[in-house]
Amino acid sequence: MDEQDKPISLVLFSGTDDKLTAAAVLAVGAAAMGRPVNVFLQYYALDAFRNGKVTQDHSLSPEASESQAPIVRAHNSQHWSDLLRQAKDVGEVNIQACALSMDMFGIGREDLDPIVDGIEGVAAFIASAGDGQVVFI
Amino acid sequence: MDEQDKPISLVLFSGTDDKLTAAAVLAVGAAAMGRPVNVFLQYYALDAFRNGKVTQDHSLSPEASESQAPIVRAHNSQHWSDLLRQAKDVGEVNIQACALSMDMFGIGREDLDPIVDGIEGVAAFIASAGDGQVVFI
Amino acid sequence: MDEQDKPISLVLFSGTDDKLTAAAVLAVGAAAMGRPVNVFLQYYALDAFRNGKVTQDHSLSPEASESQAPIVRAHNSQHWSDLLRQAKDVGEVNIQACALSMDMFGIGREDLDPIVDGIEGVAAFIASAGDGQVVFI
Repeated sequence: MDEQDKPISLVLFSGTDDKLTAAAVLAVGAAAMGRPVNVFLQYYALDAFRNGKVTQDHSLSPEASESQAPIVRAHNSQHWSDLLRQAKDVGEVNIQACALSMDMFGIGREDLDPIVDGIEGVAAFIASAGDGQVVFI
Repeated sequence: MDEQDKPISLVLFSGTDDKLTAAAVLAVGAAAMGRPVNVFLQYYALDAFRNGKVTQDHSLSPEASESQAPIVRAHNSQHWSDLLRQAKDVGEVNIQACALSMDMFGIGREDLDPIVDGIEGVAAFIASAGDGQVVFI
Repeated sequence: MDEQDKPISLVLFSGTDDKLTAAAVLAVGAAAMGRPVNVFLQYYALDAFRNGKVTQDHSLSPEASESQAPIVRAHNSQHWSDLLRQAKDVGEVNIQACALSMDMFGIGREDLDPIVDGIEGVAAFIASAGDGQVVFI
């Protein structure tokens, strides 16, 4: 298998707008380079992908200082959900919710934003990652 | 080497119960898929593996909001240490403490929970990771 | 390509001294094992590499407890910038600033510490990562 065919798999754990943006930028970049991208949503990241919550304010990483936060917030970049949609337009991007985290929040498929493609367990995620990169964010 | 023979290596830095659980779930999933798993304990994660501290409350990631924290705490999942023991039962899981972090906390082998298999330096960890995935949590 | 020729690529997002030290230790270890190392600076990590800010106090991860923080601060290790310089001495270590984050902070090449080798976009970073490990810190 050519190395460029290997997927890059992102485990999204954090649900803050800065980390979700960093993740979405990686997804766009990888998709633009022709790499399949798997996204696996857990914990606070999954919570951010709930129906009606995507474009709400998800705060910043707690390490953001009082001088950094306004700069990051003011940055006129696209919303991470738009970046992910763009990644789906240019490439093969599959977004799955972690079944265990779904259970934790007590939510079902209908509670998720339509950008999410499905629900899967961690074994299925690891199988889809194959021997491509796995990045935890 | 078949891709399924490649190890997945987890660098555990964070010592909060949510991230340790996410890491342990990945370890169980990878072990169940027949992948060797290396775990390398640093900083706050190493502190959580000290004798007598494993099952104590290790708090949650600081990003957990007041509405999220009770949901994550209430989730009736297995403790991450039980998940790691389960991963060791089903597969090849090796847990090593980072020598540099041991030195930082001024502790020795006898201060660690028996689930930890040994102590190694970062070069040994990178050698054992080979060209398998490296995931920083 | 021999596996030992594959690069290990570190995406540095966090700008706290503990995570930057953990990243620098990985870089030194990988470089010592003969692995090319790519470092890609984003968000708070990029802010920490600004001219004149490198050796300032960058605080610790917000999860550091009141009992852990003094121990981590007191640890008599080399500064992460010295570790990175050492990694460059022993191996092939390339440190690039993320163009998007440069834009966010409104800074130019002259605002960065000389340890930074250049500025690149995320597509260039993913191309340089090839199918080697990608680690998000």
